[in-house]
Amino acid sequence: MSENIFPTRTNVDAEQRIRRTGHPGCVIWLTGLSASGKSTIATALEQYLCDRGKMAYMLDGDNVRGGLCSDLGFSPEHRRENIRRIGEIAKLFADAGLICITAFISPYRSDRELAHSTVSPGKFLEVYVNAPLQVCEQRDPKGLYAKARAGKLKEFTGVSAPYEPPLKADLELHTDTMSVAECVAQISAMLERVLTEKRH
Amino acid sequence: MSENIFPTRTNVDAEQRIRRTGHPGCVIWLTGLSASGKSTIATALEQYLCDRGKMAYMLDGDNVRGGLCSDLGFSPEHRRENIRRIGEIAKLFADAGLICITAFISPYRSDRELAHSTVSPGKFLEVYVNAPLQVCEQRDPKGLYAKARAGKLKEFTGVSAPYEPPLKADLELHTDTMSVAECVAQISAMLERVLTEKRH
Repeated sequence: MSENIFPTRTNVDAEQRIRRTGHPGCVIWLTGLSASGKSTIATALEQYLCDRGKMAYMLDGDNVRGGLCSDLGFSPEHRRENIRRIGEIAKLFADAGLICITAFISPYRSDRELAHSTVSPGKFLEVYVNAPLQVCEQRDPKGLYAKARAGKLKEFTGVSAPYEPPLKADLELHTDTMSVAECVAQISAMLERVLTEKRH
Repeated sequence: MSENIFPTRTNVDAEQRIRRTGHPGCVIWLTGLSASGKSTIATALEQYLCDRGKMAYMLDGDNVRGGLCSDLGFSPEHRRENIRRIGEIAKLFADAGLICITAFISPYRSDRELAHSTVSPGKFLEVYVNAPLQVCEQRDPKGLYAKARAGKLKEFTGVSAPYEPPLKADLELHTDTMSVAECVAQISAMLERVLTEKRH
């Protein structure tokens, strides 16, 4: 089959897109436990960047799972396929010149590495949204930890399924002590540094 | 499972994105036989729009099949899943404020209707890239029709798999008589009309 697929090259190159948007495309990949603050930070970051004229777009676990990945569950295989697809979409968004913010638990290191390798080198920034399990469990805004502890929710990360923390995240945010605004400021500072480096 | 998924709402609304890009997001969905000219037109259209300051991005059958849909073949079920995923991605791009151009055979009417219903109402423009089968077969730039006729390629649209033409396309392009520039001009004129209507 693959020998019958011929990649089409677009004429619009990255430089032309940068002239239009004012910045290169990239992926900011948030990873962390449920209730660690990923979606909250991603939402605030998207707003922050768009308010400053950047082209940013957030992919959110809950939203994507209702659409593109509506056929997938939470087994290790389905989680892997979920993250694989999201990595591919994030790559397309970065290619289109956008700052793509992804907010997914993405518990397996190998899955995040696959997403990393899918996106162009230097365009993937891994952010570890790190709050202790007990803090996440106290927050439990969706009541999911309670359900998981009661055995009503299987394969729940941190309770009945593993979470493998990043070994070399580009940034680590301790959301048990940092405010949302501080987290956004730190990501934004990192982004500014990286995007500036890229253009010189 | 679905009761444990809580959609996150983004703060950045369509109006803010329109102020940034200068136009609403939408999907231009090209459908037609292999070698009818979809990718050629899509590539030229993307260039045309980007050269005029629009934010446009092309999703191409061959490219997407190498990434997001690399796990899918060409059976009716896999074609359906392929188009379903592409509809979901196109929706995300339109939501991000881009003009998303898709160039896929998308042979089944029901699959295109699903993609249409996935994208917001009025943001999906179906373009029928119509060249007679015999013209496509004479062009055969990838040698696929020859392979299909020789029985070396199964389920090939127009030869051993059906193509269901649109009943009410927003635009029909006869690529056996029209130039690429004419096709791009017609799509662009339609787009200008539709995007202008939407903003008043």
